[in-house]
Amino acid sequence: MLEKVLRVNALYDFYQPLLTPKQQEYLNLYYLNDFSLGEIAEKSQVTRQAVHDNLKRAEHALEAFEEKLGLFHKHEVRLSVISEMRALSGHLNSEEREKLDSFLSELENLD
Amino acid sequence: MLEKVLRVNALYDFYQPLLTPKQQEYLNLYYLNDFSLGEIAEKSQVTRQAVHDNLKRAEHALEAFEEKLGLFHKHEVRLSVISEMRALSGHLNSEEREKLDSFLSELENLD
Repeated sequence: MLEKVLRVNALYDFYQPLLTPKQQEYLNLYYLNDFSLGEIAEKSQVTRQAVHDNLKRAEHALEAFEEKLGLFHKHEVRLSVISEMRALSGHLNSEEREKLDSFLSELENLD
Repeated sequence: MLEKVLRVNALYDFYQPLLTPKQQEYLNLYYLNDFSLGEIAEKSQVTRQAVHDNLKRAEHALEAFEEKLGLFHKHEVRLSVISEMRALSGHLNSEEREKLDSFLSELENLD
């Protein structure tokens, strides 16, 4: 279950703007704020089953976006390349090493 | 017009998988293969107006995706950072310079 939560959270970071407002709301409450299905149902005045079905659809939508665009996968590859690049800075003078670090941080924070 | 063509082509590179098959087909024919509206209409057995409207919708969809995800913009920023990083490689020994270049190419080709 933890793995599932981490996966949904990661995909949500990348594809949130492509989801409907209701999908965003349910995912937010369930995965980020630890509401139960029953609590979301009560808050939204729908059945527990409706919340469950909407959450499933939202999760499938996230996986479908990842299959089409692969943004999370690319992000992981990028982080790994950036981490290898940090190891290269040994032979640079301190000014250049600072520049390299600042460039790498910029790349890291872009996703 | 050239600017428009370049912009649509760039966005299409990033968001093509999110478009409908028909949107992909029309954009492909019009922007990548230089078909006229009339030629696409004849090929698809629809009116010229229908092709025009579908193309407009597809272009708006591309801009909407860019507004939500900003992949093209991030790509441009990334390329500019990568280009600045290449200038740092002067003080590395040749083995490290090769590694840096290969890492930078990997990042460049990831988008």
